[in-house]
Amino acid sequence: MEPASGSRHAGPAARPAAAAVLPAGGSGERLGGATPKQFCTVHGRPLVSYTVRAMERISWISDIIVVVSPENIETMKTIIQKYGHKRVTVVKGGITRHRSIFNGLKVFAEDEFSKYLLQKPEVVVIHDAVRPFVEEDILLEVVMAAKEHGAAGAIRPLVSTVIASSADGCLDHSLERARYRASEMPQAFLFDIIYQAYQQCTDYDLDYGTECLHLALKYGKTKAKLIEGTADLWKVTYKRDLYAAESIIKDNLSQQVGVITDVKEDVVQVGLLLHESLKSQIQVEAISISLCQNESHLQNMFSGRCYNFIYIHDKQPAFQETHLLVDMLEKSNITLLYPVILISVHLNSSENISFSIGMEELTRNKKFAREVKKKNIWVYDLLIHYKDCLPLQEAVNSAAALIMALIKDRNPELIGQLLVA
Amino acid sequence: MEPASGSRHAGPAARPAAAAVLPAGGSGERLGGATPKQFCTVHGRPLVSYTVRAMERISWISDIIVVVSPENIETMKTIIQKYGHKRVTVVKGGITRHRSIFNGLKVFAEDEFSKYLLQKPEVVVIHDAVRPFVEEDILLEVVMAAKEHGAAGAIRPLVSTVIASSADGCLDHSLERARYRASEMPQAFLFDIIYQAYQQCTDYDLDYGTECLHLALKYGKTKAKLIEGTADLWKVTYKRDLYAAESIIKDNLSQQVGVITDVKEDVVQVGLLLHESLKSQIQVEAISISLCQNESHLQNMFSGRCYNFIYIHDKQPAFQETHLLVDMLEKSNITLLYPVILISVHLNSSENISFSIGMEELTRNKKFAREVKKKNIWVYDLLIHYKDCLPLQEAVNSAAALIMALIKDRNPELIGQLLVA
Repeated sequence: MEPASGSRHAGPAARPAAAAVLPAGGSGERLGGATPKQFCTVHGRPLVSYTVRAMERISWISDIIVVVSPENIETMKTIIQKYGHKRVTVVKGGITRHRSIFNGLKVFAEDEFSKYLLQKPEVVVIHDAVRPFVEEDILLEVVMAAKEHGAAGAIRPLVSTVIASSADGCLDHSLERARYRASEMPQAFLFDIIYQAYQQCTDYDLDYGTECLHLALKYGKTKAKLIEGTADLWKVTYKRDLYAAESIIKDNLSQQVGVITDVKEDVVQVGLLLHESLKSQIQVEAISISLCQNESHLQNMFSGRCYNFIYIHDKQPAFQETHLLVDMLEKSNITLLYPVILISVHLNSSENISFSIGMEELTRNKKFAREVKKKNIWVYDLLIHYKDCLPLQEAVNSAAALIMALIKDRNPELIGQLLVA
Repeated sequence: MEPASGSRHAGPAARPAAAAVLPAGGSGERLGGATPKQFCTVHGRPLVSYTVRAMERISWISDIIVVVSPENIETMKTIIQKYGHKRVTVVKGGITRHRSIFNGLKVFAEDEFSKYLLQKPEVVVIHDAVRPFVEEDILLEVVMAAKEHGAAGAIRPLVSTVIASSADGCLDHSLERARYRASEMPQAFLFDIIYQAYQQCTDYDLDYGTECLHLALKYGKTKAKLIEGTADLWKVTYKRDLYAAESIIKDNLSQQVGVITDVKEDVVQVGLLLHESLKSQIQVEAISISLCQNESHLQNMFSGRCYNFIYIHDKQPAFQETHLLVDMLEKSNITLLYPVILISVHLNSSENISFSIGMEELTRNKKFAREVKKKNIWVYDLLIHYKDCLPLQEAVNSAAALIMALIKDRNPELIGQLLVA
């Protein structure tokens, strides 16, 4: 997962030359839906795009081959274009997993695929399109092990005991859980070993097999090195896994917030209090700035991995300033992969007890938010009204709670609404 | 899962007499948190309470034994009291899973546990405290199979290939996935078979074993009948599983909404339009009623499995009516296990373009919502303002989208906020 990623990066010397094949031809019948799970949207974007991105951001992976069933080739190409993926080739899959992977490998080796023929990599990574949370660390470990041993794959402890049943549907025996492991992805192979294994294997293997490590063992006489992987290698299989993936993505996106205040004393003070109130829940980067300037600090803030911004001001409306922020966010390109949240916080310290919010203003806010949503920026409005109603600290704490709720929920239906702290 | 459950119920003749033992002594180290997973809260309630409730609602389960580690006995008792669980006995666990289950079984058989000694059941169900979504259907099937075969357990297809590693950490062999199954829960046994198996088994079994079906086979010469279970038997193991559980619970709670309108013509009309706009997304039950009456229709609506209500009116404020609804909801007892959502929808068709919302009113709404939240009722306010701003149908569609967002998100931080359709 990209935001808030803690991956260490491989130094240039250690970087292997590898390509990746992502089989994405599954029908997703276990999910119980019509859409294959790799194309189900998670926080608005197809799952396969997250996995492609996980590969794409690794500089030492030269080519990414996504193998999809014939009817999904156009869908996949559209996804690549929409989300700006690079170094990706879409290949037509076969009727089984092994046949699809074999097709993916042929792109590096066979003339009949000369339309795309790509340079043969030393090592090829095979990874499921439905395991989006793979990190560079484990990929590197598996690839380096494959260079040394010819083949390598990630494993995990078994969650349940594995049992064999007899013909009458009764327990025959149970396996001792500690002796076995679940074979997960990624796996990696010296290209020649896995390609030759696929060339030699039988139709039965291609039609009924599922395990690439098994083919390397059977046809390549190569005992794969097994690497203990982390829990985030899990495969999105059931509907509940889509729920989990969405929550993880939202969680990752809500690790960091940028707080922008104008330079007026009152506003800066509220910015400081809000910073204080938020910092135990989220990493806060704060800046006080006059928004007319073209400020490089702000551009820096927008070029990182922060997907949440708060703009605090005492103007109402603050359309001009919000527009400026929206334009800068749009140019920064961070809106390409994830919706960016922008909370416009309006301070009002009016002593007037009959202070009220006009319907016109609310309607205008909503209209503006709907426009800006097309740019993948989600704008919410928040009013901090103090002095009259309640002490400032209390209002700020209440604002912080509402801000965290908006950032964590990331709910597109609530854009343009005005919340009151 | 209780709300929107489609379980068929066993007829009286078919009902077995059974008890259930729920081992809940695990430390949850795989979750990566300090709280064992069975005590982690999901939508505000500890996971174990959901599993207890799944057992408790089945009338043919006489006793539910929850086995927890010594340090969690008081926590567990507090949970039982807080959520009004019945027929539950808390038992001190041992240091391993098997020792804990054995302790649970002793309650039905041994004098030293005479403080609680319960009537020995014919069949005992063993089910994990961290599998909250078990349905009556599968429990009944497993129990009936145990009556016939002496032992039975739910199984699921393997998600990953299972492999054995050699001493050097390399692949030794992979198992043919189709021949094996994952052993899941629930399992059930004739009480005497499993109890005698536990009495006979070795310390090694008690310390390192995990599979009750294996003990029944080894010491009871009983080959368990294997029952294909559904995907919802899965075990909450990792943090992502808590996310998934929360989403499933929220999803189940947002299947049904009750729409209450007062009897004024305008309001009834909006109620009808809203019904129409919502019904493709959620099951709607609607009622038009004068809220002064003590209406049995309303009590019926509040005694079902509906956890979402919309009250449409043209009064502002409508505190008196909302109070009445809150009181009725509180008395209905449906707030015991799940927070109930009440959306107060205020119609305003003022021609006055400068219509505005006063800060006093907003502050009062928030204060009221905070009070009512203590009763586990979450109140949100929604304004449908039409004529001036936009045509009624458009406003109603926008209101429906906001209502669905509130119902699905179930966000406690947004209570008392006024959204505008």
